Order: sequence, then C-alpha cells, then structure tokens
Amino acid sequence: MAGNSFGEIFRISTFGESHGVALGVIIDGCPAGLKIDTAFIQAELDRRKPGQSNIVTQRKEADEFEILSGIFEGITQGTPIGIIIRNEDQKSKDYEHIKDSFRPSHADFTYDVKYGSRDYRGGGRSSARETAARVAAAAIAKQLLAHFGIKVQAYVSKVGKIEIGKEYTEMDLSKTEDNIVRCPDAETADKMIELIKEVKKDGDTIGGLVSCVITGVPAGLGEPVFDKLHADLGKAMLSINAAKGFEYGSGFAGTELRGSEQNDAFYNDHGVIKTKTNHSGGVQGGISNGMGIYFNVAFKSVATIMQTQDSVDKDGNNTSVTGRGRHDPCVLPRAVPIVEAMAALVIADHLLRNRSSKL
Amino acid sequence: MAGNSFGEIFRISTFGESHGVALGVIIDGCPAGLKIDTAFIQAELDRRKPGQSNIVTQRKEADEFEILSGIFEGITQGTPIGIIIRNEDQKSKDYEHIKDSFRPSHADFTYDVKYGSRDYRGGGRSSARETAARVAAAAIAKQLLAHFGIKVQAYVSKVGKIEIGKEYTEMDLSKTEDNIVRCPDAETADKMIELIKEVKKDGDTIGGLVSCVITGVPAGLGEPVFDKLHADLGKAMLSINAAKGFEYGSGFAGTELRGSEQNDAFYNDHGVIKTKTNHSGGVQGGISNGMGIYFNVAFKSVATIMQTQDSVDKDGNNTSVTGRGRHDPCVLPRAVPIVEAMAALVIADHLLRNRSSKL
Amino acid sequence: MAGNSFGEIFRISTFGESHGVALGVIIDGCPAGLKIDTAFIQAELDRRKPGQSNIVTQRKEADEFEILSGIFEGITQGTPIGIIIRNEDQKSKDYEHIKDSFRPSHADFTYDVKYGSRDYRGGGRSSARETAARVAAAAIAKQLLAHFGIKVQAYVSKVGKIEIGKEYTEMDLSKTEDNIVRCPDAETADKMIELIKEVKKDGDTIGGLVSCVITGVPAGLGEPVFDKLHADLGKAMLSINAAKGFEYGSGFAGTELRGSEQNDAFYNDHGVIKTKTNHSGGVQGGISNGMGIYFNVAFKSVATIMQTQDSVDKDGNNTSVTGRGRHDPCVLPRAVPIVEAMAALVIADHLLRNRSSKL
Amino acid sequence: MAGNSFGEIFRISTFGESHGVALGVIIDGCPAGLKIDTAFIQAELDRRKPGQSNIVTQRKEADEFEILSGIFEGITQGTPIGIIIRNEDQKSKDYEHIKDSFRPSHADFTYDVKYGSRDYRGGGRSSARETAARVAAAAIAKQLLAHFGIKVQAYVSKVGKIEIGKEYTEMDLSKTEDNIVRCPDAETADKMIELIKEVKKDGDTIGGLVSCVITGVPAGLGEPVFDKLHADLGKAMLSINAAKGFEYGSGFAGTELRGSEQNDAFYNDHGVIKTKTNHSGGVQGGISNGMGIYFNVAFKSVATIMQTQDSVDKDGNNTSVTGRGRHDPCVLPRAVPIVEAMAALVIADHLLRNRSSKL
Repeated sequence: MAGNSFGEIFRISTFGESHGVALGVIIDGCPAGLKIDTAFIQAELDRRKPGQSNIVTQRKEADEFEILSGIFEGITQGTPIGIIIRNEDQKSKDYEHIKDSFRPSHADFTYDVKYGSRDYRGGGRSSARETAARVAAAAIAKQLLAHFGIKVQAYVSKVGKIEIGKEYTEMDLSKTEDNIVRCPDAETADKMIELIKEVKKDGDTIGGLVSCVITGVPAGLGEPVFDKLHADLGKAMLSINAAKGFEYGSGFAGTELRGSEQNDAFYNDHGVIKTKTNHSGGVQGGISNGMGIYFNVAFKSVATIMQTQDSVDKDGNNTSVTGRGRHDPCVLPRAVPIVEAMAALVIADHLLRNRSSKL
Repeated sequence: MAGNSFGEIFRISTFGESHGVALGVIIDGCPAGLKIDTAFIQAELDRRKPGQSNIVTQRKEADEFEILSGIFEGITQGTPIGIIIRNEDQKSKDYEHIKDSFRPSHADFTYDVKYGSRDYRGGGRSSARETAARVAAAAIAKQLLAHFGIKVQAYVSKVGKIEIGKEYTEMDLSKTEDNIVRCPDAETADKMIELIKEVKKDGDTIGGLVSCVITGVPAGLGEPVFDKLHADLGKAMLSINAAKGFEYGSGFAGTELRGSEQNDAFYNDHGVIKTKTNHSGGVQGGISNGMGIYFNVAFKSVATIMQTQDSVDKDGNNTSVTGRGRHDPCVLPRAVPIVEAMAALVIADHLLRNRSSKL
Repeated sequence: MAGNSFGEIFRISTFGESHGVALGVIIDGCPAGLKIDTAFIQAELDRRKPGQSNIVTQRKEADEFEILSGIFEGITQGTPIGIIIRNEDQKSKDYEHIKDSFRPSHADFTYDVKYGSRDYRGGGRSSARETAARVAAAAIAKQLLAHFGIKVQAYVSKVGKIEIGKEYTEMDLSKTEDNIVRCPDAETADKMIELIKEVKKDGDTIGGLVSCVITGVPAGLGEPVFDKLHADLGKAMLSINAAKGFEYGSGFAGTELRGSEQNDAFYNDHGVIKTKTNHSGGVQGGISNGMGIYFNVAFKSVATIMQTQDSVDKDGNNTSVTGRGRHDPCVLPRAVPIVEAMAALVIADHLLRNRSSKL
Repeated sequence: MAGNSFGEIFRISTFGESHGVALGVIIDGCPAGLKIDTAFIQAELDRRKPGQSNIVTQRKEADEFEILSGIFEGITQGTPIGIIIRNEDQKSKDYEHIKDSFRPSHADFTYDVKYGSRDYRGGGRSSARETAARVAAAAIAKQLLAHFGIKVQAYVSKVGKIEIGKEYTEMDLSKTEDNIVRCPDAETADKMIELIKEVKKDGDTIGGLVSCVITGVPAGLGEPVFDKLHADLGKAMLSINAAKGFEYGSGFAGTELRGSEQNDAFYNDHGVIKTKTNHSGGVQGGISNGMGIYFNVAFKSVATIMQTQDSVDKDGNNTSVTGRGRHDPCVLPRAVPIVEAMAALVIADHLLRNRSSKL
C-alpha cells in the first residue's frame, strides 16, 4: 500500500534513507533450495556503487552488505532473506542548505506536501541510493533465473544525442562492462564518455537510454490482463529514479508501421515455434512467447546541477538553490545494473506466478 | 495474482471473454456517499464501443450495462459495485479458422502455451473487448474524481507519421469529440482520417499515439518508491491491448536535454507553489506536484489484417492465416476513452491511498 | 482492502446485497484445465438455500446461478470465472420498519456509522445471503481439491447444550445429509431438531457448533508465520456471519493438557510418517502434516427474533424493534455448507501457494 | 504470499531465524508525523524477552533493538521503519540432536516436507523468537493507537484448570504487570505460579488462556465481509505460536444462549449510542460498535518437554527425542505482550483502512 514492496510471489520490500543508519531489503518468497553465491551479490552492488569512475559521482561508499536471515549453509530456506547495507560517508552538512528550500525537479517539495516533513539529508528516501537494496535483492533473483537458464543484460544505448544505432542482436553484449559508460559498442562508448565529461565540466547533467535484453525466458510468463509481462516490466522501470519512459519491442517507432510490417510471422524452427521478426519484443498479449525480450528505458538528466537555480523555500518565499556535494553528471552508467535488477525481479516473480496457470 | 484486478484501495476486477455470456467488473473500495449518474456510464461505453464511425470496426454491440450491486437510491454504499455487459453479435464462426492456428502478433500462441487451451472465439479473454469493463468501472472513478475537481482528458496526437505537433496547452481539448478520430486539432484530424481510410482500403492497419492530460490533481499523490504515480500510470497504460510504450513529461525526447534545460524552477504564484516549466509532467519523485500531469501512450497497428500471413498450427505445421470479420484499421480513436479510463482508475486509487500518508 | 476478496492465488471476490439485483462472485486464479460439473454447483447452493426444511427460514429462493465467464467447453480456462445468482422473493417491505432503527446485534448500526447510510432491505450486504456467492465459488474449489484427492466435510456437532460427544473418527460422516439438522449422529440429530422447533415456537433462536474435517491434505500446505494454515482457516470461519469462535485440534479443551499429554508422537506407518495421536489437528507450526485437519466453529443464535427488543433509532431516540419476516431459528444446518465452502477455499489457495515453496 | 507480512495499510514484514544473525521487521504504512518514544519499544520487548522470572525460560537475550530507518528527529516520516534485533546467546549445539530427528508437535517435520531442508538451530524461523519482531513493530502501532485514544490490554486468565472466573470489567487491569504470570487477580496469580512451578519440576509444560481487551476503538472499524474486525483479530491471534483457538464476545459459551439472551439492546447514553450488554464483544457485523472489544486466545502447552518421546528421523527410522536446553514450562506470561502486539497491529491497520469508507 505505501509502495515499498514489489512483486507478488517473489516479493521484495526495501527500506532506508540515504543518510540514515542503513538501507535494506527483505526478499520474501524465494523458493527453498537455491544455492547462493554471496560474492555475486557484492559484485552487483559494486556495479551500482558510486565512485567507480570519473564520469560518475565521486562519493565513496563501500556498499558492503550483511545477510541477516533466510540462507543457511549457503542455501535459501524458503524464509525471508534480509539484507542490510550500512550507510557511510554521510556528508549531511552538504544538505543543510536544502533543509528549508526545494531543489528544482527533486522530490523535496512533493515529500514535504505528502508527509508534512522530510529527511532532507541526501534526499532521504527519495535518493537513488535506495536502489542499492533493489540490486542486492536482484542478485538473488538473478541466481534464481540462472538456475532456469534465464539471463538479463542491460547497456547504455544513448547519451544525449549520441546513440548506438544497432540492434542488440548485432552486438556482443559481453563487452558492456569493458568501458566505464557501459555501452557494448566501443566507438560509441568513447563518444558518450567524452560528452559526459564535457557536460560535467559545465556543471551540468545529461540523460539518455538504457536498453535491456532478457533471453531464455520460456513462453507462458505474464498474466494476460492487468499484469501483462511488459506492463510489469514498464512499471518496474518507471519506478527507477529519473526514468521518464519505457517502450518494448518496436516501441514508439513501431507505431508508424502498418500491421503488415509490424506483425511477426510464426514458423517452426526444428520443433520450436518462433517468429521470423520480433517486433513484439518477446511478449504477445502480455505473455512471453519464447523470443528475446527487449526494451528501452528513458532517463532524464540528473536534477542536481552545479549551477544556481530559482526556487522557493518552505514558506513560499522566492530563493535560489545551488548544487553542492558530489553528484552524477549522467545517471546512465550506474542505471544499467538497476535496470537489470528490476527486470530480474519481474521475471523471477512471473516465473513463480506461472506455476499456477495450469492444473 | 492472476492479474485480473487493478488498484489497491479503489480496486477493480474484470472478467469475461469476448464471445462468452458477458463481460463484467467489480469495483471494490469506492467510498460510500457518491452520487452516481448512470447515463454517464453509458456515454463512456458508447465512446469505446465498436461501430461508431467508418474508421473503426463495423461490429455492432450495444454495450448496455446492468448494475447488480453497490448503489442504492443512486448513491454508492461502500460495498462492491458489480456491473455486467452482456455479449451480443457474436459471430463465433468468424473464428473457426483460427481454432487450431495462431494469428501472428495475437495472443493465440501464448495463451495456448500458458493455459494448455484457449477460448478462441473472438480472442476470448485477450480481446480488447475486455476494456469495456474497465471503461464502465472508470465511469464511476471519473465521478469520484470530479467530486474532487480532477479531470482526465485524452486525445489522439499521432496516427502513423501524422502528428499534431502542439502541446496540450496550445489546444482546446473540448474539441476532441468533434471528429471521429478524436484529435482536438481539426486540420490534423482530417489527415489522420484520410490515412486510416487509405490503410483500411489496403486491408492493413496503422498505429499511433494517444496523449492524456490530468488536471486538478492535488500535490501529494503517489507512493515514492515502487508505486510512483507515473509508474502506476505507466503500468496502467501498458496493460491496454496493443500498447507498446509510455512516456510522461518530457519523456523520450527529454533525455537529450541537459539538467539546466530539463529542471523545472519553482515560483510562488499568489500563494500556490508552481513550476515555471513542466518537463516533470506534474510528477516529481513519483508524487504529484500540483501541475498538470501529461503523458503519451504508443499503440501499435492492430494485429488482425485482411491479408494472408505465414503462421503455424497447434501441431507446429506451417500454415497461413487470413484475417476475417470486422476489425479496426486503427485502434487509436477507440483507445482514447480506454486511456482515460485507466488514468482515472490510477488517480482515484492514489487519491484514497494518500489518505494514510499523514497522522 | 475493502475486504470483499478472499485468498491470494485462488482468490474470490463477492458482491451483491440481499435485496439488490443479484449476488455474484469472481473466482480468479483457478488453474486452467479443470473439468467442471455445473450440477454440483447447484447441489451445493441447494444445501445452503433457505426453505429446505421446517427448521430453517421459509423464505423461497431458487438460488439459480449463471456462469458468465471462465469456463469453455466445460473446462476452466485460467481466466476469471464469473457467477451470478439473481435475487427473487424480495419482500423489501418487511424491512421498512428498520429503515431508521437499529436491530439489536445486527450490523445496522455499525454500517450506518461506517458508511453514513445503508441498504436496509434484508440487511443489504451484511445479510448471510452473501454466503451463497461463497458456496458457488467453493463448488469450483471443491472440484479442484477433489482432483488432488482432498475432501472437506462439515456437520453440526452441537445445538444449544445438545452435543454429539464423539470424535469425527467415531462416526460415519456420509450420514450428515441424512437429516435436516446435518448431524451425522441420528440420535443426537433428533434431539437437536426438537430443540430448534421448541426455540422457534418461542419466537427465539439458538446457537451451536459446526465441526469440520479435511482429509487428503498433503503435508506441506500453509505458510509458517502469519498465514499459518489454521490461522487462515480461522479467519475464513470467523468471516462467516454469526461466527463467534474457532478452535482446531485439541482447541480450548486442550489448553488444560500437559505437554506430555498434548504432544503427538511420530511413527512410521509403512513408509508414511504419521502421528499416533492428532491433538495438532493436522497442522504443526502452521503447516499441514498429512493427518486429518479438524476444527470447530462457534455460531451464536440468530439476531432476528420474533420478540420485541429495546433499541434506538438513527436520531438516538429510544425505540423498540420487533422481528418480522421469515428467519432461521438456528443457523447451524445451513452453516454446514458455508463452513465447508470457506475451508475448501483456504485449502485450494494454499495448495497453489505451496507450488512456490521449493526450487 | 509467503506469509511473512501482516496488515494492508499498516503492514509489517518480519524476517529472521532464531539462531541466525538477527531478527527484524519492516513497518510500512505508518503515517508520517507520529512522535516515537523509543524507550517504550524496549519496554515492550522486555515484557516478551526470556529470563524475566523463574517460571519462564532461563535463556538470556537482551533483545536490544536498532532502528535503521523511517524515523527522523524522533518523528515517523511516512517511510518504512526498519528495526532489527541481533541474536545472542545462541547455544546452537543444544540443537544438534534434532538436526535429523523431528521433535513431536514442533514444526521440524512440516518444514522439512515443505522446504526440503530447515535451519534446525533453535527451531529456525518457526521459533517463537520471531514474535520479538512483532512486538517491536506493535510498539509503534500502540503509539499510533494511543494518539487516537485506543488502548490494548491483555492478561493471563487461565493456566491449566486454574482460571480467574471474572469478567474484565470486574478487575483492575493495571495490576496485570504486578506479578510474574501476568494475571490481574493476585489470588489466582499465586495459584497459577504454583502450578507452573510444579509442572516445570516434572519436566512438563502446560497451556492456558490469554484474554485481551481493547478500549477506545471508535465505531466503524472493520470491513464487513471477509475482513471482519474479529476475523482479522482471530487470524492475528492464531498466527501466534502455540495458539489453538480464538473466541470473542460471548464466544463458545455464548452458543448455548438464545437470541433473546444473546442480543445486545441499544440505548442512548447521553448522546452516545451504546449497548446494555456486550455479548457482541464490541463488534457487530464485523465492524466495531464503540463498545469494548474483548476476546480469548487458547494456547497449548509448550511442545518441548524435558522428557523422552517417541519420534522418527529424516529417513523414517523410529527414534526418540529428549528435550534439552532452556524452555518455557508455560508460554502464557510471555504470550501476553504478543497478544497485545497482534491486536494493536490489527486495530492500527483497520483504523487507516477505514479512512476510505466514506467520501
């Protein structure tokens, strides 16, 4: 109800403010019997954490996690898995200046209206730091998916106006981690990095697109009316900070296609029913059809800029706000593991939900 | 769990197949004391129903509803409101040819895999006819919203490559119903209608965009982490048949903006805190900020075309499928009330959810 | 949220007022592929309906149902199953006298406070007539359970001070339907019937106990913390009109036993692990252990009596209320199928929920 | 779904095994603006913790909690409140002997069947230690209720065959904490303590009843069909370890009353509508009527006894199990704060749920 949980069977609940004691997540509904590689959880957190490169925020947070429950002798027990990540490096004084003023395009104003007050330090609960808890939980989900042969891979496909211009099938996605911007196309990656550095120098920020591909999903996942697989993926992505849009398969561009161009003809590929094209993005009628699932997520530029902006204070007086502290000039590189995380959570949940579709 | 319900407090559950006995919806959680105008429910259903004009399907369905419960002496009782719409004009024989074959880009194949069988008549549960139940429910939600001064208005902003090219603030949205394509810009409407007629003549179909505007929403609605207001709107829209994408505020195009261009500066407008621009689309940090909420929904071209397409049958044999019956060449005009319906349901739910945000 | 739904995966939502147009239920989450015997649904409704004998209300309602969706060619489709029962024999004028007064120990006063008004005809939504919808839904659940070898049997074990005094294992439960009070012990049944007739003659009412036994439940059902199998059964039973208490296994009486008497020793019965005694009532730690599940439900005497009672009206003035119309002198005989219905719904739901307990 | 969460709006999720790293709870949906007394949380945990007296287990656990999130400057923020309690004094070697054997009437066998394995140390997740998390969460709920003038008080009313024999209205409940058995009647308390000591000497255990009273609840709480206020209270109580039964108002004994004796006549008490008697236990039609809510919970004797019992091992071989370690001879004294906790959680949730009953 208060919206801090996600999923129906494989269900996570996150908690924690940016500069509070700790972040954390409870994973409820992970089936018993799954062997957990804890090093993988840390590796995933490391992909999201600040300070990884010179094109992201220079905050230093180790993001070390502690598993409190649910795993015994390395195996999930079917009981809730509790994970916490203690906060460090909390330069709360960086935020004293926004205690009574609202940063433009942040959640300061809306939190204040909704709750009557807010933990202003580092954005409190509205901070993207909350996504560390999602990534930790999804590191469990990804291991569940791996058990069933399912893989989730995201990458940066566009920064500002610089875009890859290739389909995911035309690239080697294993190269995504080869550069700091997480773009599998090396040449485009260089341009993106250059742009981000330029933007950063201006004290400004820039947006872009993350693309995501999910392979190995069996046909049949997704619930056909409100909880269509792509609808749940869409909500998952739009719940990520700074996300402004979602499209799957042929997406927005595909709206210009005629049915005769858009439709994916079926054929029999050595006993497996496939489609010749995949404008459907692996989902038809809200249910996976066994083809690759792919989608794009639009992220706006980060709201905190190192410039002075007009605003108002709590009492409605005109004022100005100037960005301080260490912030990301571009959220995209660090958004990649978060997009993967949310995708993994959706698929894990629907994998379990589908166990009741038939007698 | 099986995904036929939507909303948390103001919650609807739909049921019914296209060519079964009836469609229906239960609205649970509508507060007691709301005066209901039943004529408005029919008016909304009429906006969605087939056969309205020569650019939509020529099927004839009266879509007459019957209220079974929850309203007494014209007033909601706080108890579930049950509404059914009996099916008529069921030319099930039009569907015999697809009993054992899968129509490309329809849900035939995925339903068969998921459930082991399907009600193939008219697409069964996967038919967009299910949305009539949503529209009926939303006609109640809209009356709840009207009580609180909230208004939802959608319109067709693009068909194929023909688009309005104006912001919603530059148009008179009350003109949306003045033409059969539901585009408030008369000139563009004419071009859209022409295109749809041309596409229809080719036995083909075409996609486009529906834009939606919600005004009068107080600041504070939306839950800040997973159930962000725009995330729930996104899921709602993506749950509509043929939807392929969602963007709000500056959306996909806005990803190219720098923070200094994207950010919405606050100012005090005679005691009300507003933003000078509204790239945020009325939602910041997942919570409404009191500005107009606006978003776009991408719809692909209708999958049923009057042409012959390659496919496979249930046994995996190659076959072909040719469209029959009466189908929409373009889903957009009839999608307008459906987009409004889903938007109204989301806002009504969050309006009630927000009653517990403060002591 | 508004509490008109029950279950997580196998989930029902009921709607309808006593003297409104119709009652109904949506069953969402019934797996596809179940063959449905519709005659069984009517048979179950007939066990609950009024007018069956001279010890229950003489109201006449056929309680004929209509299936609106979800079943095609006799088989469940995995889609929501909608069932309605139209109301007949609505002597609404019998209720004019309570329009503005509150019947003692009814829901008139509390509904008025909660909702600001109420559909006073026949108790509206608070009428036990609502349970017809539950029984219809459970007739589907029972068929699902039968597929897995699970059987639910309830019977009247006590009326007033007349009780059976035998364990369920000492009786032939197939004899429950042999008499109008639904007590499998013929001798006790006669005494119960006599008592009810006496009470009825006095214009009074009487309470009692319904006992219920569930056999064939595999070990492993139930979720171990809040959704313990017996906790969900308890809630299910307490949600039935006039229920005042629930106990399972050794229950209230067992609280006087020492651990050495109460504990159920395990033994190996030809490869199946069983317990020598079954004070646990088939549930240990909230999870079924494969032994018979049994419990008792306490029902108070019906609130409507053919006598004059003190009360107040809407404005708080002292007044008196005299029962009119045709009411049950004892709810127990008709409560038997309702108890079975709620038990079947709980087990069906947990059967499906348990599909995600292991990898 | 996996049943580790409770409540709809005021919703808690617990996690943690008895001998794992920590127990914890997330409270989601607590309204913003509530001033929290953290000392009260510790005081409540101390009422539940082991080692309080010589009639409960002698295990030593400080049960010190740490708040991780959701409270800023002493005030709830509307964001999830995370609380953990680290485990100490884990004599896991006390449990080696049950690693492969099933303790009679414990959850060992059922967990093993359900999950394929179990954390056998101290009962793992099935340990009543989990209730510490509930008590911590309810210490917040109680402060919310106190803000609205609502008070929850439980006490031991029966141990073995020794019972108080007085209504709650005839006693001073503030004396409950005056003795180690938590019975407000001093004379009965002495007898109970004597009995427990005797039972303990025998290496045995004993059950009993906890009664609970909730005052100050406004009329109108509870949802009228499945989520009746007493049904949710019943489930809450039955979810507590060792609970075997629940009754409210006149309960099981009341089933022998005739309607003319059972019914609670209304009267106007200086402008407030009250009932002359309160057999309804403060709830009518599932909704609170403003009178005191009261109910009883039956607890069986603790399963772990210091005696040797027959059992089987994992491979189905006959074996025997002898209790070791430090266990409660009677769960009742420590169950009092747990019963209060669950009651407080139910009322807090329904208090918020009721905010949407009317326009």
